[in-house]
Amino acid sequence: MKVTRVGEKLRRYYHYYPGTVAVIGVLDPKKESRANFMPAVWNAGLSFEPPLFGVAVSPKRHTYQLLAEGRPFSVMFFPYEKAELVAALGGTSGREVDKVKAFGLELAWGKVLEVPLIQGAFAAYELEPFDRFPTGDHDLFVGRVRAVWEDESAFNEEGVPTPDRVRALLYYGRYLYGSPAPWVQRIKKP
Amino acid sequence: MKVTRVGEKLRRYYHYYPGTVAVIGVLDPKKESRANFMPAVWNAGLSFEPPLFGVAVSPKRHTYQLLAEGRPFSVMFFPYEKAELVAALGGTSGREVDKVKAFGLELAWGKVLEVPLIQGAFAAYELEPFDRFPTGDHDLFVGRVRAVWEDESAFNEEGVPTPDRVRALLYYGRYLYGSPAPWVQRIKKP
Repeated sequence: MKVTRVGEKLRRYYHYYPGTVAVIGVLDPKKESRANFMPAVWNAGLSFEPPLFGVAVSPKRHTYQLLAEGRPFSVMFFPYEKAELVAALGGTSGREVDKVKAFGLELAWGKVLEVPLIQGAFAAYELEPFDRFPTGDHDLFVGRVRAVWEDESAFNEEGVPTPDRVRALLYYGRYLYGSPAPWVQRIKKP
Repeated sequence: MKVTRVGEKLRRYYHYYPGTVAVIGVLDPKKESRANFMPAVWNAGLSFEPPLFGVAVSPKRHTYQLLAEGRPFSVMFFPYEKAELVAALGGTSGREVDKVKAFGLELAWGKVLEVPLIQGAFAAYELEPFDRFPTGDHDLFVGRVRAVWEDESAFNEEGVPTPDRVRALLYYGRYLYGSPAPWVQRIKKP
């Protein structure tokens, strides 16, 4: 490992990939089917108590406007089998396209919050707006988990989505998708 | 997929795993070897321009105190072969243990910032403190990338750490580690 770039504009910014993709769902009152979705690979858990989850979204995105209005939102996690759908959600804008109609999405609606969900995810959260932080050319929208959706077959007895249960969708950047190797190793604290 | 939990305290909060592990490196002026390290799986890219990267750290962590003093820090990304080391860094506290000595770490030092690095990573950033956001029981420390370290053999011609080049270390929660399946699929925008 050696220093390869110093202080310049970073064109290749993929060192921390692959990451699981969080598909954001938010109500779009201007669409007939009233839902918009976009994938965000810049996502992370942020707190256990309260349970907080964050997604970074560019102001260029239609979803940004919907989130900036302070709406609740969902995030969904998909298996590799849904890679084409997730890529299609990322490759179109809700400004021009009603994604629900264009991709024939089968929706569910939040139990606690007014948020849209897509069937076929193996897990999802209903998120109440908690905070919003400016981070350069994105904003980090932080939501508080108010309800959890699960396909219980995707999780082991500890609640972990191990790759023998589910092939989680991973994103590498540059339109490259993959999934985890089908094994894990437990390494206890020393 | 169905609703399994509503509004309760979330004990099992692993739905968005696995994630790559960012090992944080920061100067510890009280240690003889002057460096401390901890793994953070709650990490994310946050901006392209300026290039920003965030790590969520609990106030319980010794690293938190060091970051809260406004020091620059590094983040490093390791191959699966270093899983035992990364687990050991997470299972010990810099309050009690000089990790450099305890684990015989071979260090490098930042070219631009006064940050410690560990040899054996396939990539690393030198990060200048940019902002810090409170997020429930963690704080998100956001750094601006001032220098990039790379093992160039770990990246494809587009700068992506594809799994044919490097077996990135993935963390699933509950001390479970893995790595990506050795293939990717390119899915172009529709």
